[in-house]
Amino acid sequence: MVRGNGMVGSRRRGVRCGIVDTPIRLTKTVSKGGCAAKIAAGTLRALLETLPTHAHPDLLVGHDLFDDAAVWRVNDDTLMIQTIDFFTPVVDDPRDFGAVAAANALSDVYAMGGTPTTALSVLAFPVGILPDEVLAEMMAGAADAIAAAGAFLVGGHSIEDDTLKLGFSVTGFVHPDRLWRNSGARAGDVLVLTKPIGTGTLAGARKNDEIDEASMAPAIESMKQLNRLDLPSDLHAAVHAATDVTGFGLLGHALHLARGSNVTIDLRADDVPLLPGARETLERGILTKAHTSTTHYVDEHVAGRGGLDAAAWWSLVDPQTSGGLLLCVDPARADDLLAHVREAFPHVAVVADVVAAGAHPIVVRS
Amino acid sequence: MVRGNGMVGSRRRGVRCGIVDTPIRLTKTVSKGGCAAKIAAGTLRALLETLPTHAHPDLLVGHDLFDDAAVWRVNDDTLMIQTIDFFTPVVDDPRDFGAVAAANALSDVYAMGGTPTTALSVLAFPVGILPDEVLAEMMAGAADAIAAAGAFLVGGHSIEDDTLKLGFSVTGFVHPDRLWRNSGARAGDVLVLTKPIGTGTLAGARKNDEIDEASMAPAIESMKQLNRLDLPSDLHAAVHAATDVTGFGLLGHALHLARGSNVTIDLRADDVPLLPGARETLERGILTKAHTSTTHYVDEHVAGRGGLDAAAWWSLVDPQTSGGLLLCVDPARADDLLAHVREAFPHVAVVADVVAAGAHPIVVRS
Repeated sequence: MVRGNGMVGSRRRGVRCGIVDTPIRLTKTVSKGGCAAKIAAGTLRALLETLPTHAHPDLLVGHDLFDDAAVWRVNDDTLMIQTIDFFTPVVDDPRDFGAVAAANALSDVYAMGGTPTTALSVLAFPVGILPDEVLAEMMAGAADAIAAAGAFLVGGHSIEDDTLKLGFSVTGFVHPDRLWRNSGARAGDVLVLTKPIGTGTLAGARKNDEIDEASMAPAIESMKQLNRLDLPSDLHAAVHAATDVTGFGLLGHALHLARGSNVTIDLRADDVPLLPGARETLERGILTKAHTSTTHYVDEHVAGRGGLDAAAWWSLVDPQTSGGLLLCVDPARADDLLAHVREAFPHVAVVADVVAAGAHPIVVRS
Repeated sequence: MVRGNGMVGSRRRGVRCGIVDTPIRLTKTVSKGGCAAKIAAGTLRALLETLPTHAHPDLLVGHDLFDDAAVWRVNDDTLMIQTIDFFTPVVDDPRDFGAVAAANALSDVYAMGGTPTTALSVLAFPVGILPDEVLAEMMAGAADAIAAAGAFLVGGHSIEDDTLKLGFSVTGFVHPDRLWRNSGARAGDVLVLTKPIGTGTLAGARKNDEIDEASMAPAIESMKQLNRLDLPSDLHAAVHAATDVTGFGLLGHALHLARGSNVTIDLRADDVPLLPGARETLERGILTKAHTSTTHYVDEHVAGRGGLDAAAWWSLVDPQTSGGLLLCVDPARADDLLAHVREAFPHVAVVADVVAAGAHPIVVRS
């Protein structure tokens, strides 16, 4: 734990602390960071099932489903999309962390086909332990990301806490015809993933100094990138269902799509794009608790695990922070969509076929 | 810290742990609870001033002001109100804590004159330290309160954490003509407070066993009560400005009203309703860190402090969790409004006069 002493100054990367010039590494202040700190999917699901579900004609998507955000009909032309996400640091630099936290929270609105409009911050800050400059840098990074989304940071709530956490409650709007749900996938669609996988294992490796700062850079850039696709209307309409990949990994979120749409997703592990170095850290067994809990959550719903090597399996349950979008796309428009998306997301790839529901919602092969 | 052992059972009040039948007291698991854990107003203000402010014709209230929530114009007839609040336990019983957390978050929508519509939960839970039953009870208490507001719990985000925190991001709607801001108070208005003061000192006393469970009960009931007034239209229009009293105490929030409206608030400490026992715990010096930080925040803006005894001053900066509304009311309609509000809020009182801006935004007298 690093204490502020009034002599803090800012250097090229991040905030440094005091006369010994030791950089503050935010990830060293927490036991686990980012979406890996989510409560395990099984636990959460059990809780959600105990809560009352309410029906209202304007509540189109509530907490009883596994969509990325809630949807409320404001009027016939306007749906409101709402989501919240927050977590402990997954990267060391305060400005990067703010940008990642914002991009991650904004993503749920993009995953529903919407445009983010307003954001409220959720902040827990160790006042007097981390210097105030960390707070200012973090919020500046977040504000930049929110502005890049064309949205507005309109308020928030902040508490003192032992460990730093930051996130956002984001609201967006979408026309009813443009809403993407997890329930619209059709047999014959192809499944497109926009960002490479591996932020969970790489962040874990970096936290424990098993990879250096430069090796973490591609993961940070990927996490900071907004999931904003700006698809033309015809390509937007070619997306039949969507979600984003976060704490429950590619398989956890693909499972929500498969169940929501009553289809089977036939996934080719070798086609899943990985961040540089992620294969190596997975082979070295650098895993988070989420790798195990998500395996437990998805295992009975997945056929073909035996055909994969261990590292390939772990990549499919690697918890992503600010991961890419998973889009179920009309196969006739897939090439056009890939060409459009590739300009901003060079690693975008078709990773699976959507097929008629079989014995398992997910089939994996190498 | 209490560990779950699989033998947890529920009794009359709260969740008890294991064979020794010791009740779990949530407030014993945290160093400070409720709105007392807010970051000091001065610190927060300094941060907000560093953030860019954005202008957009539909963003009517953003983070650069001290209103209770952000306001976004959806169309000419509909404004969206957004707020977020979360905190560590301020009461021991999980169901009570859920209800208080929800009532507190919903309050900011009521303070803007709106009707809450949707809520997203913000949850940090010590998995494996507190039993799952605490989580279920808490969320059930919150769900009841949200349902009583006519709103819907539509989702949320949950992380594992060392200390329990719960809150909500709440969205509501209001017609533009019915929006209450902190900027509408007029000289001649009277200032009405709907709930008695004292949750900060009483919760602090209870946490340290300086008062017993029964002595805390009125404060808990007050914190659980929704700030829903259901005013008829004519009385709603007689409210020229409003806010709610939370972590910055009566004076901190009155200061935001006075500054927002460019008036002076002339406050009579003897007229401020107090919860049973609050005067005594304040006289015994049972204070929180927020009593001091809010004193520091407001002191230079307040005239007349010397005329109050210490306990009276501390009551005016006592941090409230889920405190009452402060309403600046047309004096010609004040009696009618009081009569209407008194049915649900028997301690409602006129505590101040709004006068033309003087040398200090706040004047206090006994």
